Amino acid sequence: MAEQLARGSGIRKTWEECARMKAQFGEDAVCDFTLGNPIAPPPPGWSSALREAVAEDAPGAHRYMDNAGHGEVRRRVASYVQADSGIAVPASNVLMSCGAAGGLNVVLKALLDPGDEVITLAPFFPEYPFYVDNHGGRLCVVETGDDFQPDPQRLAAAITSRTKVVLVNSPNNPTGAVYPAAAVGAIAEVLAEAEARLGHPIYLVADDIYRRIVYDGATVPWALALYPNTIIVNSFSKDLNVAGERIGYVVVSPRAEQAQAILDACAMTTRILGFVNAPSLAQRVVSRCLEASTEMAEYRANRDVLCEAFARAGFRVQKPQGAFYLFPKCPGSHELACCADLRGRGIFVVPGSAFGRAGHFRVAYSVPHQTCLRAAAILSRLA
Amino acid sequence: MAEQLARGSGIRKTWEECARMKAQFGEDAVCDFTLGNPIAPPPPGWSSALREAVAEDAPGAHRYMDNAGHGEVRRRVASYVQADSGIAVPASNVLMSCGAAGGLNVVLKALLDPGDEVITLAPFFPEYPFYVDNHGGRLCVVETGDDFQPDPQRLAAAITSRTKVVLVNSPNNPTGAVYPAAAVGAIAEVLAEAEARLGHPIYLVADDIYRRIVYDGATVPWALALYPNTIIVNSFSKDLNVAGERIGYVVVSPRAEQAQAILDACAMTTRILGFVNAPSLAQRVVSRCLEASTEMAEYRANRDVLCEAFARAGFRVQKPQGAFYLFPKCPGSHELACCADLRGRGIFVVPGSAFGRAGHFRVAYSVPHQTCLRAAAILSRLA
Repeated sequence: MAEQLARGSGIRKTWEECARMKAQFGEDAVCDFTLGNPIAPPPPGWSSALREAVAEDAPGAHRYMDNAGHGEVRRRVASYVQADSGIAVPASNVLMSCGAAGGLNVVLKALLDPGDEVITLAPFFPEYPFYVDNHGGRLCVVETGDDFQPDPQRLAAAITSRTKVVLVNSPNNPTGAVYPAAAVGAIAEVLAEAEARLGHPIYLVADDIYRRIVYDGATVPWALALYPNTIIVNSFSKDLNVAGERIGYVVVSPRAEQAQAILDACAMTTRILGFVNAPSLAQRVVSRCLEASTEMAEYRANRDVLCEAFARAGFRVQKPQGAFYLFPKCPGSHELACCADLRGRGIFVVPGSAFGRAGHFRVAYSVPHQTCLRAAAILSRLA
Repeated sequence: MAEQLARGSGIRKTWEECARMKAQFGEDAVCDFTLGNPIAPPPPGWSSALREAVAEDAPGAHRYMDNAGHGEVRRRVASYVQADSGIAVPASNVLMSCGAAGGLNVVLKALLDPGDEVITLAPFFPEYPFYVDNHGGRLCVVETGDDFQPDPQRLAAAITSRTKVVLVNSPNNPTGAVYPAAAVGAIAEVLAEAEARLGHPIYLVADDIYRRIVYDGATVPWALALYPNTIIVNSFSKDLNVAGERIGYVVVSPRAEQAQAILDACAMTTRILGFVNAPSLAQRVVSRCLEASTEMAEYRANRDVLCEAFARAGFRVQKPQGAFYLFPKCPGSHELACCADLRGRGIFVVPGSAFGRAGHFRVAYSVPHQTCLRAAAILSRLA
């Protein structure tokens, strides 16, 4: 674990230096774009649902329930997913999880035998390597293009007889890229071909945590509708700004091979990993506000200000259609020098190598709009 | 995982058959002693603390915090443990966890290198083998005596150069045995001697989840006070009857070797296992009702009725001083035959081999008193 602690130190060091600067020179001395921690309060739907759930004080409300969650909560989530995706989802195919991080660990432990391979697309969320390693898997990284879109040929080339899972994240952390239906369809085609050739299922695990954080009318296709062996992992952390409450869900496609065995295994891994069940009260609250979502106007304004400011300052930046991250390219210089230069000007970002792509950096813009305006002013002097 | 699912089927099968009987013949047709799921509502202290925490609606209350938990919550837990144990505990040595199950997984992943050995005392909580296996450890089982008390000589004989952890649980699930200070002191002596001989620390991990469920004035010593390399894992599940809310804590003794490195590792394993942090709201609630506890009178009455009834019916039964379990010995016959015989009479219990000791069975008496009276009537006919 000491080795892993050392490995994980890139983001932490940036964040710690940023915290020191804030402590020394005040909050306004730096523009902190290091962490994707939404700052807005939960939407009103959450607050009223919370008050209702507490007032109701149903008998047994705080007791153990099935490892997969409260039956009524699973029914409501299933209905919601069914209505949104157009795919029939029985309540028994939903498992409530401790956020997406909990859901991904539960699913990977359920699926992986030692040495099984998990393919993910770079740039990727830096926790994925840990999640795969936790359960004896081997992470195989496939590059996306300059536009951060999946490359079906590279994906096909990376599949081996040990490939058990392909883990995708759209809208993507750290790039904000959204994979359109055609891109997910192309992945599905590659996987279906490989399955037929290899004679065993390859599960597409879709980390949908940013599904509802999209701009400019972008829509996020449901992998459920495009590929039978799909498992969805989702969370309310970003929709409802309740990342600290640890609540999300897993949906195993009813069309997946061995769907029931996977659901049984997920209930068991929920138990033996020590989650036991997603927090009871949070389950009951989210089930009452499945349609609620955080306000997107400020995120959009932040994105627009920062995209323009970085572009004018000479950075190549892909305008993201989702999530709340930019992933600009460093112009010429090495990424660490580039990030150090920005840091010297008070702009704290995370080097791209933490996400599996050097030469870039991540800008998490789930911050007050004022911070983006200050950064834009600094960048305009740089231009 | 399919193999592990099959392994874990003993308790589940009993519970499922019991559920079928209830569905078919009504709740009163069977006496369900299969699961340790407290049925009482949370004490009033929890309910008022919950309403307060919700009404307060502090800014950022639902956001991510440090992986170890809210600073103020950790300070309150540290003060509570310090006052109760007499050992100085800084807030930085407390980490909030998703119950004891989450805490144990976090601690074991933080401590274990592949192949490290974890000693536990039989009979033991049947999830321990999974928790150890999850993180590449090897479980070594040491028998207790007929009185279910630790045997220092057997413990000493089981220690090898790979022993990293000794995991104890007092009051014990499934026996209800409480280890007095002298017993924990004797364990401490064995471990200190082994540490000196082997030249590396052996951590005593104390699963204290039933610490406050005790009878007849029994007191549970704090291992913190008796052995430097101690890590406490605790939960509010049983004290407050909120097992579904997944809230507990870990205390790393400030006197432990590499205490800071262990705390850093536990924060990291909390993160990478997908807990990220203990549920935020539950943290804030328990920190306001650390002194609250469930009512013991009904548990005590249940214990007394069942102890007498099983003893009269010819079972040897050790009167437990804590928790809410009896672990009677089957008279003569094989445990499965014995459990099947009881089941035939409507009394559902779990075979002892699930807990690492055959020839016994566990009776979980966190049930309505009426259920115990019905069982006593059935047992009196058997006598």
